[in-house]
Amino acid sequence: MKAIVTGGTGYIGSHLVKRLLKDNWEVAIIADPKFGYDNILDVKNRITIFEYTGQIQELIKFFRDFNAGIVFHLAAAVLTNPSPEQLPILIDSNIRFGTEILEAMSDSGTKLIVTTGTYWQNYNGEEYNPVDLYAATKEAFEKILKYYVEAKGIRSIVLRLYDVYGEDDRRPKIWNLLKGIAGTDKSIDMSPGEQILNLVHIDDVVSAYISAYNYLKQNSEIKSEVFGVYAETQKTLKEHVNELEKTLGKTLRINWGAKPYKKREVMKPAYLFKNPPNWKCMKLVFIN
Amino acid sequence: MKAIVTGGTGYIGSHLVKRLLKDNWEVAIIADPKFGYDNILDVKNRITIFEYTGQIQELIKFFRDFNAGIVFHLAAAVLTNPSPEQLPILIDSNIRFGTEILEAMSDSGTKLIVTTGTYWQNYNGEEYNPVDLYAATKEAFEKILKYYVEAKGIRSIVLRLYDVYGEDDRRPKIWNLLKGIAGTDKSIDMSPGEQILNLVHIDDVVSAYISAYNYLKQNSEIKSEVFGVYAETQKTLKEHVNELEKTLGKTLRINWGAKPYKKREVMKPAYLFKNPPNWKCMKLVFIN
Repeated sequence: MKAIVTGGTGYIGSHLVKRLLKDNWEVAIIADPKFGYDNILDVKNRITIFEYTGQIQELIKFFRDFNAGIVFHLAAAVLTNPSPEQLPILIDSNIRFGTEILEAMSDSGTKLIVTTGTYWQNYNGEEYNPVDLYAATKEAFEKILKYYVEAKGIRSIVLRLYDVYGEDDRRPKIWNLLKGIAGTDKSIDMSPGEQILNLVHIDDVVSAYISAYNYLKQNSEIKSEVFGVYAETQKTLKEHVNELEKTLGKTLRINWGAKPYKKREVMKPAYLFKNPPNWKCMKLVFIN
Repeated sequence: MKAIVTGGTGYIGSHLVKRLLKDNWEVAIIADPKFGYDNILDVKNRITIFEYTGQIQELIKFFRDFNAGIVFHLAAAVLTNPSPEQLPILIDSNIRFGTEILEAMSDSGTKLIVTTGTYWQNYNGEEYNPVDLYAATKEAFEKILKYYVEAKGIRSIVLRLYDVYGEDDRRPKIWNLLKGIAGTDKSIDMSPGEQILNLVHIDDVVSAYISAYNYLKQNSEIKSEVFGVYAETQKTLKEHVNELEKTLGKTLRINWGAKPYKKREVMKPAYLFKNPPNWKCMKLVFIN
């Protein structure tokens, strides 16, 4: 059981790396040293680290040598409001890098990949309508992936993620901001808060990757499928915040409605794809 | 009537530039100086040339200043069998550059674009199945385009091109190879030749871009459509070659079947999209 993880130094990726190690996998990550290793310091000496500098022949050689059974592809640039100068970063991270991974896979014995999409590819519940350019690059990558599936014998599962949360999440999410002002005099302006969020705990998200792998591994007739990693329950942002307030036992001073909704705010997530087989969201209560 | 043409120094683009000039348009091209200006030497001093070096703020300023009514986007890297090292070229040319064009459009008064796809996006007649990675990057770009249509008020038409030919085509196409050996002792090994080609003359292809513009301009309710630029008649490669032989009045020594078909050879083009409105392929005979 050997896995290559991209994005292994990120929030979700680092949790996946640790889960794989716990399950006795041999793990390699493909890393960009400029992002550092803060999230995996405790396991850094137990994994293989390939620092990719854009020399694709080195990447190909690494894939041939390591000979993994699966790639978990989580690397992405998440820029929800990119400047024009940042477009190349979005495209390089979310399309080019993944294409190079697929090319290296084609040339190696590693033919299985579980990759990462977002429910933001389905604005208004449409089969495809991206909330933002980030979501569009995710869809674009799936179109590249299709080539490798059809022509190069790659077998894939795309996991469309919803809102991921967890105790140690240091990403700039609203929950961290709220915890920072809880119990203080500071107030915060927010939208009316009626948008529905489907929150899934990081441990459940990690399990979804494992379930996807098992399903792909055990069903050799599957070429390519898409699953959605969402919980059965869903609440509005306001309801989640009320719950957080109770959990913390502190008051949150929020001016609901002081800000408008974002342009293309997702008021109601769409659920176009089934959950991964043999996976269920276990942590149904949002405890932060 | 002001147009910005990308790929204006290429085969199809240069013909479009000349047609637009003939129709009294003011034309600007966005060029990469490394490809040279061989195809447009005769009109170079009648057009505006913006040499793009990757400084997107300069591109944005150019779009604002020139204030075109339409972008004809034909720039592409056509690499049908790219090496791993060439993947970034494919993605940069076929996805990133077009995204930057759309970004610059969003920030200017230029909201209409006619862009270029290929019938190779529909292998086996499927809604989407790319013949090769080139076709996959074309599909990927259409997914990026969708974002700008939905979120930024861009209105677009995609023209899916078939096999373009013309008297002055210097691209490495089979016809040039055949003309080179016609009447000589040289022979050439080819596949069995039963694959159907839908050949469209360059003048007709250029007219399709103009028809697409007129349709987009005259119908302000259209957000995004796709059309196919194909002829009513279609013949096999072998039939086309026989015709070429007659036209040239010279014998061609071809060993039909000495080579196998390519992997993922398109034996029968699919016609999933209508022709552009008010457009018809006029040159029905393949004369080369």
